[in-house]
Amino acid sequence: MPCGIITLLTDFGLGDPFVGCMKGVILGRFPRAQIIDLTHGVPPQAVAEAAFWLERSQGAFPTGSVHVAVVDPGVGSERRILALEARGQLFLAPDNGLLGERLTSSPGARAVAVDTSRLSALALPPPSATFHGRDIFAPVAAALASGALTLDALGDPVTPHPCVLAPPVADAEFIRGQVVTVDRFGNLITNIDGAHVDTERPRYVLLAERPVPLARTYADAPAGELVALVNAFDALEIARRDGNAETHLGLGRGTPVRVPRRGHVTRA
Amino acid sequence: MPCGIITLLTDFGLGDPFVGCMKGVILGRFPRAQIIDLTHGVPPQAVAEAAFWLERSQGAFPTGSVHVAVVDPGVGSERRILALEARGQLFLAPDNGLLGERLTSSPGARAVAVDTSRLSALALPPPSATFHGRDIFAPVAAALASGALTLDALGDPVTPHPCVLAPPVADAEFIRGQVVTVDRFGNLITNIDGAHVDTERPRYVLLAERPVPLARTYADAPAGELVALVNAFDALEIARRDGNAETHLGLGRGTPVRVPRRGHVTRA
Amino acid sequence: MPCGIITLLTDFGLGDPFVGCMKGVILGRFPRAQIIDLTHGVPPQAVAEAAFWLERSQGAFPTGSVHVAVVDPGVGSERRILALEARGQLFLAPDNGLLGERLTSSPGARAVAVDTSRLSALALPPPSATFHGRDIFAPVAAALASGALTLDALGDPVTPHPCVLAPPVADAEFIRGQVVTVDRFGNLITNIDGAHVDTERPRYVLLAERPVPLARTYADAPAGELVALVNAFDALEIARRDGNAETHLGLGRGTPVRVPRRGHVTRA
Repeated sequence: MPCGIITLLTDFGLGDPFVGCMKGVILGRFPRAQIIDLTHGVPPQAVAEAAFWLERSQGAFPTGSVHVAVVDPGVGSERRILALEARGQLFLAPDNGLLGERLTSSPGARAVAVDTSRLSALALPPPSATFHGRDIFAPVAAALASGALTLDALGDPVTPHPCVLAPPVADAEFIRGQVVTVDRFGNLITNIDGAHVDTERPRYVLLAERPVPLARTYADAPAGELVALVNAFDALEIARRDGNAETHLGLGRGTPVRVPRRGHVTRA
Repeated sequence: MPCGIITLLTDFGLGDPFVGCMKGVILGRFPRAQIIDLTHGVPPQAVAEAAFWLERSQGAFPTGSVHVAVVDPGVGSERRILALEARGQLFLAPDNGLLGERLTSSPGARAVAVDTSRLSALALPPPSATFHGRDIFAPVAAALASGALTLDALGDPVTPHPCVLAPPVADAEFIRGQVVTVDRFGNLITNIDGAHVDTERPRYVLLAERPVPLARTYADAPAGELVALVNAFDALEIARRDGNAETHLGLGRGTPVRVPRRGHVTRA
Repeated sequence: MPCGIITLLTDFGLGDPFVGCMKGVILGRFPRAQIIDLTHGVPPQAVAEAAFWLERSQGAFPTGSVHVAVVDPGVGSERRILALEARGQLFLAPDNGLLGERLTSSPGARAVAVDTSRLSALALPPPSATFHGRDIFAPVAAALASGALTLDALGDPVTPHPCVLAPPVADAEFIRGQVVTVDRFGNLITNIDGAHVDTERPRYVLLAERPVPLARTYADAPAGELVALVNAFDALEIARRDGNAETHLGLGRGTPVRVPRRGHVTRA
C-alpha cells in the first residue's frame, strides 16, 4: 500500500540542517523514497497551525503517502509518538494534539502508539534528547514507506490526544471561528469550513467587528479592497486584493471571525 | 523529448504548504518526476522578477525540462494559461507577461493557450478559485513531463502577452536599464546584458548618479568597495565586496543604471 | 562506492534561483542523483558556521554520499577547490577553511585540489566569474556521485587550509568555547563537545557571566527558564524552555561559554 512518498511538516525552518539530516536518514534506509517538504515554516511550537495545514493538505497526496509531522515541544520527555492510518494514508506525529479531527475521526481511522522496544529490526540509534525527528520519526517513516513495517507492528492501538486546533462554534446567529494562520501574501485564513459560507448571495463575514464582503475569488474584488472567500483548502479566508491584509489591518492569528448563519441577517 | 524534470518558480514562499501540495499532485500523476525548486522567493506578484529569473536560469537545465512558473495575481479570473516550447524546453505560466522575450522570441518558439475543456483525459478536479498551481498547473505539468500529453494537445496557438520585464533602452551616450532584482547578498542585478558591457578596459557604470568601477569578479575589488560586473546570468550587477550593496547604499529594485556606450566618454 | 546522494550546503538562501540552477546542472549530468538540501541558510560568507554544520551533520548520511559546500567569498579568484574523502563520504568545498578538523583529521582522510585542466572528459563550460557552484562544483559532484570520476582523478593531493572554526580551549578551570550558531528556535549552539560536559551531576555552564543549569533535555527545565544541554549534534547548547534564548538574552554568535572542568568548582 505505501507509494514511496514521505512528506515532512515541521517547525524547524530551513536555516539549519535539521530537515536535511532527516532526509539523509530516510534515504539511507529507503533509497527510493520520494521526500516532499510540506512546509517547515510553521511558527516554533505552533501545534495548531501544523494540525490545520496537515489535515487540509493531505488531499493533494496519493494513496499510500506517509506524512511526518514534527512540531514537538515535548521532545525528550515521555510524550508518545503516534502513527495513524486515515484516508488511505499514514501519519506520524507526537501525541500532542497535532493530528486533526478530520483525520482521526475519518471512517476507519486507526492509531497506534509507537513502541520503540518492538522495533529492534530497525536498529534505531539511541535517541538523542533533542532531535527525535532524525532519530525516531525518520527511520520509522522510512520503514513504513518502504513497506518494511506495517502500522500494526509499531505498537498498540491508542486514542490520540484531542486536536489542539479549536473548531468553530455555532450559535443562533453566527458561526464563530478565528484566524488560525496567515500565509505569505498576508491572507488571513480561518478555521471555518466552506460549508458554513454561502457565496452564492451577496453576503458578509465579520472580521473582528469589520464587515468584509464575500466573493468567489481575489479577482472579484477591486484592487486594494478586502474580500472574504472560500480558499483552495476549503477554509474561509480574508484577503486584500493585490495587497496584504495582515499588514494593512494589523490583524493576525487569533482574530475572531463570524459568519452570519443562513436565514439570519448580518449585524455587525 | 521530456526528460522527467519539472521545475517550479512561484511567489508562494516556503512558509505555507502550497508548494508541497503542488508536488503531491505532480508525483501522484507522474511518480518518476524529478521536481526542482527554481525559487519560491519571488516577491508577491512580482511578475517581472519571475520573468527575469526564468529566462536567465533555463540554460542550467537539460533538454526536455518542464518549467512551471506561477506568479498569478489573476488566479480565478479569465486570464489564459500558456504553454510554450522554446530552446528545447517547455514552459507553463499564466499569460500575464511572465514569459520573457528571450524565450518567446527564440527560434522555433511556439505557444498555445491551455484549454482545459480538451483535457478530459487528465480528469482534472474542478479548479478552486485561488490555487490553480495545484489544480491546473501541476497536473498539466505532470502530463507534459511524463509524455502523456504534447504541447499541441493542450490548446490552440496564441501569441503570448508581451513580457512585463522592461528591456534596457539605448541612446547615443548610454545603455539605460535598471535594477530588477536584489539577491540574498544584497547584490543589485540589472536588466542590462553582458554584451552591453566592456569589461576589458577600465570603465564605469552609473548607479543612479554614482560611478561604480567595472571589474571581472568580486575578488577584484578591495573589501568594502562597490564593484560592477557581468554576473553568471549574463546580467550587469553591482556588488559590494564582502558586504551588502543594497543595505549599504539604501538602493534597490528600480534604481536606474547606465552603461556608457563604447566610444563615448563617461559623464556622471 | 558512491550511493547517488548529493547534499548541498551554501549561503545562497532560497530566495534566488542559485540552488535550483545547481540542481539542474547536476540532474542534467546524473539523472538519478538524489539531491538533499543540507541548508542554504548559512549567513552570507559565514565559513565557520558552514564548517560546523557540515562536520556535525554528515553522520546522518549513508556511506558514499557526496557533500557539496559552497560558502565562497573568493569565487572567481585563484583559491583552490578541495575534494576530500573522509568517513566513507566525499566532500567538495572551496579551500578556505570550510572543511572541519573532524573530517580532515579523521583516519584515512585524503584531500586533493580539483584541477579543472584534467577534467576535459566533463566538458565543463567556461566558468563564470561569480557562480562556481553551478559551473564547477555541480558538474564535479555529479561526476563523483555517478561514479564517472574518482577522487584521485580530480587532482593532486594537498593539505587543506586549516579550519576557520575555532576549537574550544582548556585551562585548569574551564573549557572555554563560544556560541557558533543560533538555530531557528533561538537556541545558542556552541563549539564545545558533549565529551566536555558532565550531565550526570547537577552542574552549570557559564554563558558570558551567567550560570545556566545543565540538564538532559528541554523538558527538564521549567517553562521560560534557561537550560544547557548536549544537543543531537554532540554540541553544548543553551536554550530557553518554550522560548527563544537569543531574543530573551540579547546574546548570539560569539558569546563566550565556559564549562567548569571536572573536579573543579564552578566560579562565576
